[in-house]
Amino acid sequence: MTDHTLVLGGARSGKSRRAIVRAESYNVHPVYIATAEPLDDEMEERIAAHREERGEHWCTLEVPLLLSSALREQAKLGRVCVVDCLTIWLSNLMHYEKDPDEATHELCTTLAELGAPIILVSNEVGLGIVPESPLGRRFRDAQGRLNQRLAACCAQVEFMVAGLPMTLKGEPQI
Amino acid sequence: MTDHTLVLGGARSGKSRRAIVRAESYNVHPVYIATAEPLDDEMEERIAAHREERGEHWCTLEVPLLLSSALREQAKLGRVCVVDCLTIWLSNLMHYEKDPDEATHELCTTLAELGAPIILVSNEVGLGIVPESPLGRRFRDAQGRLNQRLAACCAQVEFMVAGLPMTLKGEPQI
Amino acid sequence: MTDHTLVLGGARSGKSRRAIVRAESYNVHPVYIATAEPLDDEMEERIAAHREERGEHWCTLEVPLLLSSALREQAKLGRVCVVDCLTIWLSNLMHYEKDPDEATHELCTTLAELGAPIILVSNEVGLGIVPESPLGRRFRDAQGRLNQRLAACCAQVEFMVAGLPMTLKGEPQI
Repeated sequence: MTDHTLVLGGARSGKSRRAIVRAESYNVHPVYIATAEPLDDEMEERIAAHREERGEHWCTLEVPLLLSSALREQAKLGRVCVVDCLTIWLSNLMHYEKDPDEATHELCTTLAELGAPIILVSNEVGLGIVPESPLGRRFRDAQGRLNQRLAACCAQVEFMVAGLPMTLKGEPQI
Repeated sequence: MTDHTLVLGGARSGKSRRAIVRAESYNVHPVYIATAEPLDDEMEERIAAHREERGEHWCTLEVPLLLSSALREQAKLGRVCVVDCLTIWLSNLMHYEKDPDEATHELCTTLAELGAPIILVSNEVGLGIVPESPLGRRFRDAQGRLNQRLAACCAQVEFMVAGLPMTLKGEPQI
Repeated sequence: MTDHTLVLGGARSGKSRRAIVRAESYNVHPVYIATAEPLDDEMEERIAAHREERGEHWCTLEVPLLLSSALREQAKLGRVCVVDCLTIWLSNLMHYEKDPDEATHELCTTLAELGAPIILVSNEVGLGIVPESPLGRRFRDAQGRLNQRLAACCAQVEFMVAGLPMTLKGEPQI
């Protein structure tokens, strides 16, 4: 199994920053795969600001749905990819009425075949009270299943709180 | 203190699976105590599916409220019990207008007297923003108090994230 | 850097109790800085009950907004302060239309200059599904940013679950 990493955590817990630092530790050309689609001007601006923050040595791809083929392509080029994030990817899957379990299974199969490390970012969303809306409950369940399956596929799993990592799986990393 | 275990975590974090694995490690007849009542056909089906997943060596009891007497009975027979879960038990207590603090106190007293290990599953629900409804806030507070008191009664406490355990109390277990 | 501590956790996770125990371990005159304002009789009563629980060796100050000057004053007197909590402080800042990022920056600058230890309590609120209200989302983001910045300023960071501490930063403490 290639050394893939899953970075879990809540909103504003420092997941993206952590994933970027982990990717840069590999000293190869890093690629940032954004799953969010820029839907308005405000979002466009935020995305541009994040891109500038990462610096010019980063490539950025927008991949709302077809993660597996994008990862296979980048891995062939020997690049290390950050996928930010699987929560928005899941939300895109549900929006376009794809089956999240099937897509997760495909992603896990792809990860097992890749020769280059991937750092995946995902939200933990199941630690509040039961959501009032059926969609909220459905999303929460799907996210929990996705996180469990990805965690099983990755050699390293970290849980971020307030910018600080806890190691759930693998050796603690700086 | 007999070696009781509390398995905490969010929705779909792998708590039940973990509790079942822990119970099976004792190599005695395991009993699954479900606190949920099958209220409709869909739930009936899900419960049946879970029962099949656990396998035929498991006994299943439905105990929506009277945990202490059920646990005492099973412990006398030398069985190891999984209680899945205290969040639904708490919700049942509140629904039937029982005092959660009193019931928790009784449960803790029972646990201290038992000679066989119990594995209790409970949800952590206090890590989102303040719930909008008064009932939501009341439930969240009651769940937090219950978890603190049970954690104090158990020799092992684990916190599950994405199917992976973090040890909060006791020695790390496989 | 003086030995400041940040105690994070969800609702009813034992944060306040933990902060009080940590403060008492210093064996100097402890001061409890409450950021909540007693708005009604019920709250007045709860605050009085908590005060009695802490005991007579504790001093209590109510500081809804101006934390930096209060902390500087107490540190000069050689006292150890518990700030309970930054979540209500953040909520007060937003209510009075102050800039949370600016106030957090000022607090961090103050902490770096103090010669006496401060124990700060804050809630983790980002581990549920996306809040439905824009204010909820804004609060969640602001709380996450605040927690990250305070965690960077403190030598010790702990995450409480069910009354039990996990060490996020620094050496594990009793």
